[in-house]
Amino acid sequence: MVQLENAQQILRSCTVFIHETEMVSLQKAIGRVLAEDVKAAADQPPFPRSPLDGYAVRGSDTKGLTKEQTRSFRVIGKIYAGEVFDGIVHEGEAVRIMTGAPIPEGADTVIRQEWTDYGEEEVLIFGESKPYQDYCFQGEDYKKGEILLKKGNVLDGISIALLASLGMAQVEVYRLPRIAVISTGDEVIQPGEPLRPGKIYDSNLHFICARLKEMGVEPFYADHNADSAVCMAQKLYSIAKDVDLIITTGGVSVGEKDIMHEVVNLLEAKELFWRVDLKPGAPTLAMEFQGKPVICLSGNPFGAAVNFELLVRSVIEKMTENPKWELKKSNAVLQSDFVKKSGVRRFLRAYAENGNVWLPDGNHASGVLSSMLGCNCLVEIPEKKHGAKKGEVVCIYHLM
Amino acid sequence: MVQLENAQQILRSCTVFIHETEMVSLQKAIGRVLAEDVKAAADQPPFPRSPLDGYAVRGSDTKGLTKEQTRSFRVIGKIYAGEVFDGIVHEGEAVRIMTGAPIPEGADTVIRQEWTDYGEEEVLIFGESKPYQDYCFQGEDYKKGEILLKKGNVLDGISIALLASLGMAQVEVYRLPRIAVISTGDEVIQPGEPLRPGKIYDSNLHFICARLKEMGVEPFYADHNADSAVCMAQKLYSIAKDVDLIITTGGVSVGEKDIMHEVVNLLEAKELFWRVDLKPGAPTLAMEFQGKPVICLSGNPFGAAVNFELLVRSVIEKMTENPKWELKKSNAVLQSDFVKKSGVRRFLRAYAENGNVWLPDGNHASGVLSSMLGCNCLVEIPEKKHGAKKGEVVCIYHLM
Repeated sequence: MVQLENAQQILRSCTVFIHETEMVSLQKAIGRVLAEDVKAAADQPPFPRSPLDGYAVRGSDTKGLTKEQTRSFRVIGKIYAGEVFDGIVHEGEAVRIMTGAPIPEGADTVIRQEWTDYGEEEVLIFGESKPYQDYCFQGEDYKKGEILLKKGNVLDGISIALLASLGMAQVEVYRLPRIAVISTGDEVIQPGEPLRPGKIYDSNLHFICARLKEMGVEPFYADHNADSAVCMAQKLYSIAKDVDLIITTGGVSVGEKDIMHEVVNLLEAKELFWRVDLKPGAPTLAMEFQGKPVICLSGNPFGAAVNFELLVRSVIEKMTENPKWELKKSNAVLQSDFVKKSGVRRFLRAYAENGNVWLPDGNHASGVLSSMLGCNCLVEIPEKKHGAKKGEVVCIYHLM
Repeated sequence: MVQLENAQQILRSCTVFIHETEMVSLQKAIGRVLAEDVKAAADQPPFPRSPLDGYAVRGSDTKGLTKEQTRSFRVIGKIYAGEVFDGIVHEGEAVRIMTGAPIPEGADTVIRQEWTDYGEEEVLIFGESKPYQDYCFQGEDYKKGEILLKKGNVLDGISIALLASLGMAQVEVYRLPRIAVISTGDEVIQPGEPLRPGKIYDSNLHFICARLKEMGVEPFYADHNADSAVCMAQKLYSIAKDVDLIITTGGVSVGEKDIMHEVVNLLEAKELFWRVDLKPGAPTLAMEFQGKPVICLSGNPFGAAVNFELLVRSVIEKMTENPKWELKKSNAVLQSDFVKKSGVRRFLRAYAENGNVWLPDGNHASGVLSSMLGCNCLVEIPEKKHGAKKGEVVCIYHLM
């Protein structure tokens, strides 16, 4: 029997950060962890740019111009965004320019077209713009050589846009963990099959796969296994070399069909711990096999769900160094009483908002899944406490 | 020129909720909106179930039993989870039972095996369990006919597990919106191509596609179009029948290459509005074509990003009725001063945490993308205000 924090630490110490990388297209990189520092290869924008539709001029030529005091300029060219004007703007000259086009040499500002007569060969200007007043500087977004994104950053929409602005079509990210999920139990059948006496449907396999996918990891392998220690050991043996982590459910208690203890022996794996001092999901077992962590969760749906959050997340966080896997804690004020008999450390499903936390009305038993619907956190009732009162400050673990 | 809230309302009034549905497998249903009420087809668990490894007995037979006062029971059978025992447990009889197995008729509790001598034909019991004390009731999770999930629920990991527990391999969800994203601008080239003078890389297309994917929608069509009103009109014409929404960027200002005004005319589309009274992204244009909203964002990266959040999200929220698309507002205390010249309503990129909000140090210009990195909200500076002071309470719009 180990304490939760001890179990987390034991698991993390046999978990390695996955340092292998892969090149992926920008749109596949969303949510992934960047494996390289990204430096700007050029200034952004790569040239001084017009922020307006108008006329590029020397600002000093427009000093004091008003509707009453106008001045005529010779229009020496016209450029749209995407084009380049090769000449130089001298005193008394203007270049017709559109938003986003490079400001020609010699010009240091742009007069908005509303302050002109829109002239094509000569233009009458009746407004003033100081040098660099209406002017987007080369490199105003970022400068060549600047580190824009750092190794370890998680890529979101803005990061992807920034990579695109750098001209990168692909980016190097750490590969995702390869995770196998295996449910056990002879009483367990798959959704879609007809229900037979004594059987129940497999919710654990679907819960764990769904949570992994919600967090951006497609399970590498997901299946159910009968209650045969030999078959299970063979399956783990054949799959361990291809994956970084194995998660199983069921078969970890003290009954005759609790096969996972025998699986540890058959595989000659190193048992890391068995039983964690908490409820639900206490019988959780962990082993190290071929250098990979194997976490064997309870078969009780709520027990499996809680220990997925408390233990499995911590392992995946270390593998990926992706902060979204970190289980975040905070304090909240409990909005209802909860009484329990035993002094075992307990985790309750709950819903938290704005510093308050509510327990669902339904059943808190370990086998019950439905009362977890709509919950977004776990409330901890520490060891030796026999419940908590409405108004008490409790520690909550956020689930997303 | 319209107010933001007016623009949102105009767009939503020409947007219809997508009521078509599709059947998808459970693992593909994550994050999707349920299109049917889901009722329990059977009790869960479907039978009274043993919570322990032990012996199923009549609780009254164990009254007062202790290590000193033991009693011997005749073992009339043995059942593992997944099996069924057909007989009835009478007074003085016990059935060896494993966790998860159905409690046989006649028995009303289970004595944990640690309180017995593990006997196989006769078992000595030296502990007491009251009727139904160690007993999982049939239907304790949910009862046949109970509505477990409602039409409109967004499916998360727990919902998926619950659907699996019901035996459902597929579920009916509303189909996702089909969205086309088209960037414009002759100055814009795609990442991966060599940078030529006067050109910049396309970040808007990648930003919008990445945001859609972050929110669970794979863009139906995504491409860049040259600054030709005829080509753009043809593209919109050919694609409109296949999609629910079209988002474009660029070409909406007042210059000669601002083609979207002409596109409205060529398509004989209904212009809904042009120019929204805010900064950045003011020149946003919206039209209705073939009954579909077409939202034409500014070409300025930050302007496009802000109006994606302020306008496009609102349309997708109405199409999907998925609350994750709703732009949530709250108040926060500004942690730095911000000064601006004009009295235009302004949205600033910012980072909020625990009721405080920080502005990034970088450039706040509309063309600048890099200072939006790490931001999780927009701060609103209302119309006529020329900034905000440190310590002031401001309204923030959360981006995720």
